Order: sequence, then structure tokens, then C-alpha cells
Amino acid sequence: MTPLLTDLRVVEVSAFIAAPLGGMTLAQLGAEVIRIDPIGGNIDYRRWPLNEAGESLYWASLNKGKRSVAIDLRHAEGQELARALIGAPGEGGGILVTNLPAKGWMDYETLRQSRHDLIMLQLTGNPDGSSAVDYTVNCASGLPHATGPTAEPVNHVMPVWDVAAGLYIATGLLAAERHRARTGAGQKIDLSLADVMLASVANLGFTAEVEINGTGRQPIGNDLYGAYGHDFATRDGRRVMVVAITTRQWAAIGLATGLSERLAMIGPMMGVDLATEGGRFAARHAISAVLEPWFAARSLGEVREALEAAGVLWGPYQDFAQLVGEDSRFSADNPMFRQVDHHGIGPFLTPGSPLAFGAVTRQEPGSAPRLGSATEAVLHERLGLAAHEIARLAERGIVSL
Amino acid sequence: MTPLLTDLRVVEVSAFIAAPLGGMTLAQLGAEVIRIDPIGGNIDYRRWPLNEAGESLYWASLNKGKRSVAIDLRHAEGQELARALIGAPGEGGGILVTNLPAKGWMDYETLRQSRHDLIMLQLTGNPDGSSAVDYTVNCASGLPHATGPTAEPVNHVMPVWDVAAGLYIATGLLAAERHRARTGAGQKIDLSLADVMLASVANLGFTAEVEINGTGRQPIGNDLYGAYGHDFATRDGRRVMVVAITTRQWAAIGLATGLSERLAMIGPMMGVDLATEGGRFAARHAISAVLEPWFAARSLGEVREALEAAGVLWGPYQDFAQLVGEDSRFSADNPMFRQVDHHGIGPFLTPGSPLAFGAVTRQEPGSAPRLGSATEAVLHERLGLAAHEIARLAERGIVSL
Repeated sequence: MTPLLTDLRVVEVSAFIAAPLGGMTLAQLGAEVIRIDPIGGNIDYRRWPLNEAGESLYWASLNKGKRSVAIDLRHAEGQELARALIGAPGEGGGILVTNLPAKGWMDYETLRQSRHDLIMLQLTGNPDGSSAVDYTVNCASGLPHATGPTAEPVNHVMPVWDVAAGLYIATGLLAAERHRARTGAGQKIDLSLADVMLASVANLGFTAEVEINGTGRQPIGNDLYGAYGHDFATRDGRRVMVVAITTRQWAAIGLATGLSERLAMIGPMMGVDLATEGGRFAARHAISAVLEPWFAARSLGEVREALEAAGVLWGPYQDFAQLVGEDSRFSADNPMFRQVDHHGIGPFLTPGSPLAFGAVTRQEPGSAPRLGSATEAVLHERLGLAAHEIARLAERGIVSL
Repeated sequence: MTPLLTDLRVVEVSAFIAAPLGGMTLAQLGAEVIRIDPIGGNIDYRRWPLNEAGESLYWASLNKGKRSVAIDLRHAEGQELARALIGAPGEGGGILVTNLPAKGWMDYETLRQSRHDLIMLQLTGNPDGSSAVDYTVNCASGLPHATGPTAEPVNHVMPVWDVAAGLYIATGLLAAERHRARTGAGQKIDLSLADVMLASVANLGFTAEVEINGTGRQPIGNDLYGAYGHDFATRDGRRVMVVAITTRQWAAIGLATGLSERLAMIGPMMGVDLATEGGRFAARHAISAVLEPWFAARSLGEVREALEAAGVLWGPYQDFAQLVGEDSRFSADNPMFRQVDHHGIGPFLTPGSPLAFGAVTRQEPGSAPRLGSATEAVLHERLGLAAHEIARLAERGIVSL
């Protein structure tokens, strides 16, 4: 079966999370993604977590299904090779994504000389091109001050802005390629991590709240804002998140716990209408107080059984070991996952794209390439170099194979 | 100038964050996005935060630039209208995104009878189609247990999985439309919030760490894993995040604070090599101890000046009010933002797409439509209904205008 993004060819000169995730997202939909790295790897090649042998689980996980070309990018001849690869002909080619400084040989106007319809997406930290990373963008987002039970800022562990930027990259490249297929025109696309953060925070209404209502969102611990949601401890030391947004979900909590009548007393007691989301939010502490003993008296298994039977919207808290060990969605039974043997690391459960397309078989997740393992094939296929020419480049240290 | 995604037409039957964000992402790149809602609005129409008059800042922010069609979807005739709109002819049409149960009239096989090349993306909570929301997926991700200073789980406030799913939706629809333009074939695309979470956590190496190294990531407060990053309080009660990933960034911290020599004592003292990221991570508490008094003795302004001069990678913490009031990137000087007057709410700073495409002017962010404001125009344009026919439908309560 032909892959979904057949004939799409993207060159990636990247490091860290966002740009590699952008490339991988397209690779997992069937695009050919060629990651060009300096010989020995880019700055992210040994990023933690590592296995015992020092291989990066992070690099292995963010570069699956790509082809690796290793070139000495400080050398003029290496730069020329990279430029030629980026500008190589072909309808779905001529697409570059990078989060490195696009200066000198990698400047857009320079690269465009090899291919006038080049599409180049450059990710920067700030809109003005200055440096920023997920951590230095996140602290400015307002979210850390609203996270956790107090106003003490709490950083996220999930690199949200990197992941969102990676997905904007995939969207942006597909949109630009659609435009080029219709008009023949390439273009430069600029994206900054800070703009991804600012747009997201504004799209969710956090800044409008300040501008219109004069108040910023306050920390409310693990509760859910504007509706009912709370986390409860179980008898066996586990914890669950329970949510009610719709009236049906709210009724289900009473049904599952047998506490409908007591919960109904809260409305008059607190002077709120529990039939509304806002009323349940206002009375959330009273609701949680009524429910807490029920959860504390039951094991996770018992809680699960009762909540599922009544159709409550809920989920168990899991640490990473519990996610790996207990969650049936994290298993080879989930068609997104495969057990993949990764070079120098060994087998671990590896996801393909979460997008399941009916018209094509899901692309195998694959593994990250050994550094430089596609240098020879790509230089031959795309630039027509002969084996002895490539061997000579390798001897001189311009490329590594 | 023609918009980037000219001739792309998406119908959205949606609620909450992910599906509306997917539609808005495409609308902000120039696609025509028609959101069909039940008369009076869908379940997200009054979601918090609200303004004083009860208008939702959340809905207004997630539905910008769309056209609104309001139809009684419980009525057979209303369902027939919606089905006809989804299947309306046109090269870039025949695309539906929904996160509602796709049963009955909205079943894929049923809809395909009106248009054989229909592209339909359905977002569910779990891969098996059962319900889940960001909160009940997030608790299972492992991340809350690794967030904050202790193993007590901390929920994120940013709905990460919703936002990532929204961007996967935009990517998935563009990929499927590219495939259809080449092959003529439509398809159903399935995506679940849980798979987005599982893929993301695995792509970042969190699960491989458990499977390969036998250990899950532990909470380390606001520190950065595998390199140096820490938050410091300033004399004037503010807080900053300071990060060093590269050697240059590490040297800059010593330079800015004048503490290079003292920092250099930490290597031998702790028995680590501070020239490596891993060494700096291992010695992070000692590093922070040396740096802390420097920050505590200075105001945010003084800290900013010294860090900027030395090229330190850093950022200030801001709550939402500070983000709105102090951050120059959150202003009309940033070309992503416009001051937009929103129906029933008033003006607030509103982002367009963070993607800036060189070949086209950035689409104005626009505002969310008044519910049903495009019903008449869309029924006329797409289904050829005459004014008196539409008026009759409105009188009978099948549509609202």
C-alpha cells in the first residue's frame, strides 16, 4: 500500500524536541524525512535519559522512521552537500525544517538559489529570533503560577510548547506544500516557541480573563475550573480523578457512590444550583467532602468497578511505572504500538502516529537511524554521487557513513 | 492576496477544546470552517470563564474566524440539512471533523452516501471509543506524579492533550486532503485523546526509561532534568528561570553573576565534571546554592540587565496579569496579535496563527461568530436554498438565523 504522504520529502537540520517531532510526525504519515546532522551528532544526540551504554532514549524516541545523513557542516564542501540535498529536485521535495540559526549557508535567500520554490520553516525561541527554550517560555506563560495548590510557581514536566510547536510545524509544512502544489510558489515560514505559547494561552481564554474580567486564573490544585472535578485517595494508597461536566456525568457520581441524596442537600446548604456547572464548581469543596469517605473506604479495584458500572467520567492516577505496567492502552494490543528493537538500546514499546487513517495501513513506527546510516544512499539517490566519490568524501571526513 | 488554504472547506460538529482548536487552526490559515451547532449552542457554548454578561471568553477564543450554522440536530429535517452541508460538492469540501458520537445520521458510512470521497476525522476519548477528557487522560500519563517538588500528583492547568489533539487534527486533515487530491479517495480518520497522550509520553522517552532502565522519572520541582535549570527568587519578590544546556550558556551564568570561580570549585567538591550536562545536573543543588544569594540580592530589573548582557538563557516568571501587563511579546507590536472587538464581550488582544507564511499576509485573527449568523448564507451558497425556504425552516425551528 502506498503511504499517505507519498512523494513528500523533508530535510531536517534540527535538535531537541520541537523540530524533530515535526519531522517525525510527517515521517510517521509516510513522508521521507532526512535528518542532516554534524558528524558525531548534534547537540541533542546524548540528551538524557540515557541507557547504561550511554545511548539516548530521548533521541531514539524523537527520530523514529527518519533517514540519517552525517556531514561536517563547518566545512564548505559539507555545507555545499547539505545545500544540494535541501534543493534536490522532485515535486514533493525542496522542504527544510530547522531550529538552528539559519545564517550563512543555511540562509533562506542563499538556499533559494538552488531551488526557487523552496519551503523553509524556521523555528526560533522568540519572535525576534533570540533564544528561548520550553522552560524559559513556560515561566512567562502564567500557567506555573496557576498550577498546583498554591501561587508558588510549578513548572510542567511535559514540554508543552515544544510538542505544540512540533505539531504546528507539521501543519505548517503541509499547508505550504498544498499552496506550492497549486501556485508553484515556495516560501519561508517563521514560527517561534514564544508565539506558540502566547497563542495557546490566549486561545484558551487565560489572557482575555485578565483583560475583560480584571482577574487572572488562581491556583485550585487538582480541581477542574468551571465545572466539577477532584482527585480522591483510595483505601489502597492510589488516587483517582473524577469529573462531571454534563448533567448525566454528575448524576452518575451520585449513582455510583449511592450518595445522591446527600449530594442534593448541598444545593440549598450552599445556596447554589447544583444542576449547573457553575453551581457545582462553587460548591466543589462541599461535594468533595461528601464523596471523600466513600473513596477512602474502597480499593482502586472496587472504585473502578462502581464508577464504570454507573458511567462516571474518571481515570486512575498512574506514575510512569504504573502506566507501563498496568494500563491496557499501553500495550501491543493498541494498534498504535509496536515492540521495536532500537539500535544499541533494545526493544521497547514504540508508538506510531496517533492518527489512524482508514485508507492506508498505519506506518510502522520504526526506529531512529544509526547516525549517518543513510549518508551513502541519500547522496547517491538525490545527488547522483558514485560510490567512489562518496567513499572519498568519507575518507576526507566531509561525511560519515 | 489569496489565503494560504484557499478552497479548503471544513465542517465542524464539535465541542470543548480539541476539535474546535483543530478547526480554528485551519481557519487561521485561510480555510473556510463552518461550525454546525444545535440551536442555542452546543455543550461548550457557556463554558467558563464568562464575562459579566455570561458570554464565554473560552468559546469566543476557540472559534475565531469560523462561520456558524445553527440547526436543530434532533429533528430529521435538521439532520438532513447538516448531512447535505457536509457532503456539499467542491474540490476542497467534503471534510468533517467531530468529537461527538458519530452515530445515526453522522455515521461515516451514512455520510459517505452523500459524498463518496468524504474525509471524516473523529476524535474520541479512548481508542475503544469510550469517553475521556483531558483531566481523566492526564492523570494516567505519569506526568502529574513527576510534576512539582513531591510525588503528590499535580494536574496541569494547560489542557495539553486537548491542544496536541487539536493540532494533530489540523495535520491529519491536511494529510488526508493531500492524499485525496492525488488519488480521489476519501477516508475516515480516527484519533483518541488517550492515544495522543500515550504517543507523546512515549515519544519523549518517559516510558522507555521504565522499560529499559527500570526507573520512572522522579519529581525534581522546577529543576530541569539532565542539564542545569533552576528557578530563583529576586529581592523584589519576583522569580526567574535560568537554564544552561550548552557550554556557552553555562559559561554565561558565571560571567553574568561574577561567580565563575566559585562555580568551578563545585566540580572537584562534588566529584563531577561540570563541563558536561550530566555533571551539572548531578551537582545542581550545589550550583543553585552558590547562585541563590546573587539573585536574592537583586531586583528583577537588575537581574534582567546582568543576564541579558552576558547572554544567559533565562526568563521571568509571570502570572497571567503580568503576562498581559508586562510582556512586550503580548502586545499589538507582535504581528501575531490584533486588538479585536468580540461580540457581546468587547475588545481584547487576539492571536492569529503563530505560523507566519512569507507568501501570504497573515490571516486576521477574526472573532467567533454569533451563533447561527451564517446559517442563511451557507444554506444558500452550499445547498442553493432560496430566502423564503430558509425563512420557512427558521419559522419551524429547524434552523436559527
